[in-house]
Amino acid sequence: MYRSETFVRVRYGETDQMGFVYYGNYAMYYEVARVESLRQLGLTYKELEDGGVMMPVLENKSVYLAPALYDDNLRIVTTLREKPGVKIIFEYEIFNSSGKLIHQGQTLLAFVNKNSGKPCRPPEHFQNVLKPFFE
Amino acid sequence: MYRSETFVRVRYGETDQMGFVYYGNYAMYYEVARVESLRQLGLTYKELEDGGVMMPVLENKSVYLAPALYDDNLRIVTTLREKPGVKIIFEYEIFNSSGKLIHQGQTLLAFVNKNSGKPCRPPEHFQNVLKPFFE
Amino acid sequence: MYRSETFVRVRYGETDQMGFVYYGNYAMYYEVARVESLRQLGLTYKELEDGGVMMPVLENKSVYLAPALYDDNLRIVTTLREKPGVKIIFEYEIFNSSGKLIHQGQTLLAFVNKNSGKPCRPPEHFQNVLKPFFE
Amino acid sequence: MYRSETFVRVRYGETDQMGFVYYGNYAMYYEVARVESLRQLGLTYKELEDGGVMMPVLENKSVYLAPALYDDNLRIVTTLREKPGVKIIFEYEIFNSSGKLIHQGQTLLAFVNKNSGKPCRPPEHFQNVLKPFFE
Repeated sequence: MYRSETFVRVRYGETDQMGFVYYGNYAMYYEVARVESLRQLGLTYKELEDGGVMMPVLENKSVYLAPALYDDNLRIVTTLREKPGVKIIFEYEIFNSSGKLIHQGQTLLAFVNKNSGKPCRPPEHFQNVLKPFFE
Repeated sequence: MYRSETFVRVRYGETDQMGFVYYGNYAMYYEVARVESLRQLGLTYKELEDGGVMMPVLENKSVYLAPALYDDNLRIVTTLREKPGVKIIFEYEIFNSSGKLIHQGQTLLAFVNKNSGKPCRPPEHFQNVLKPFFE
Repeated sequence: MYRSETFVRVRYGETDQMGFVYYGNYAMYYEVARVESLRQLGLTYKELEDGGVMMPVLENKSVYLAPALYDDNLRIVTTLREKPGVKIIFEYEIFNSSGKLIHQGQTLLAFVNKNSGKPCRPPEHFQNVLKPFFE
Repeated sequence: MYRSETFVRVRYGETDQMGFVYYGNYAMYYEVARVESLRQLGLTYKELEDGGVMMPVLENKSVYLAPALYDDNLRIVTTLREKPGVKIIFEYEIFNSSGKLIHQGQTLLAFVNKNSGKPCRPPEHFQNVLKPFFE
């Protein structure tokens, strides 16, 4: 298992007239969380894509337990439970500034060769860096 | 069962550098679809909210079958399978301009009293309009 | 001069906790307005881009006269005052459902060759279609 | 004059299929920049709004000199040239990771009493904190 955390501050433009973060904006928080999660291992999604591998999202699930508010400095705990193969599952738990769990999410992504559009394994370096967490 | 359809044209700003609609933007399409779905029955979410009832999202699920592209005029089929009580489930199927099913989604929302913040039944008028579809 | 109009309905996710459309979302309305403005002449931005010409934005100006509200069916009047050369200026006036002018905007875009990244003239067909409006 | 800087990392969902940050997303960067600019003085927009004063945007100008790219860690220099009265003007200069100036923006906002909807002076504490920079 690999677990990491990152912080995202809620922007005004991400709220809606209900006074909460719009439900559609959590997906962007997930993106930040998984990208920073990988960066903490020295892996960047940008390099992956520049290297010819992209990671489109196949499935996404969100559970909204309590609203996130403007200017909240959200703590997002990102978890990889299983060693990534052709697919990779990121889980997210979002806590508000008071430490309350307000949101749970899960995203299934595929590794896809940019030229062929076909599923592929993650690059060797990517696999090597993650390997120790799943032994 | 109540089923309706609506069209949403993909905006440039909704694509990402992969050349597809960003995965987080489908939630906004769902919103348009369910609002238009209700409007076709003479119900508007705006009136509901002005009347003191809001509908926060509790859960959301998305399955990305194939990418949506810039300028695609997406057809979204919205379905209510069960009669709404304190909660309501909208299902979405999104078809691209070639008629191909490219996306499936599902959103669970609650009816909530704006002042108390407590769950409530939908207003009587709302219930009456939907009733015939579930008999 | 070429003038056209298009309608855009305000989405919930486009409002912010002030209860108005977030100021950053008007740029997307401008995009819809200019794309539909061209479509009414049989020109699509998609074809332009597929044909190797893209139109990045160089400058943008916005004046917020009054707020746009959720579910407003905004009427956007788009105007080309001058015949486009290597650059093109779109002007926008946005009216709310009560017919009140609530917003003015202006966007300067360039025609750019996708491969070279260099400024270019719009394709001949594009020029021919617009020509009669500036004679 | 008061000048400060803040960093914003470009999210994938903020790019468009041109491979650049969508022109409409800079407004959100400005928002982050001015909010962080005030926070560095111990002022938060959230408290201001909780205290009954909101700051709607009246005018916005943007000049796009060069594209911002995915994962760029943008440096935004925010400047208040004049002492804020009923209105306040924020200027932004955005630099990419290579230190190149890629964007200039300017936003005029008003201080508005939340209840009356009328323009007002900023709260005394707000004025006092900014005062030394304009003497």
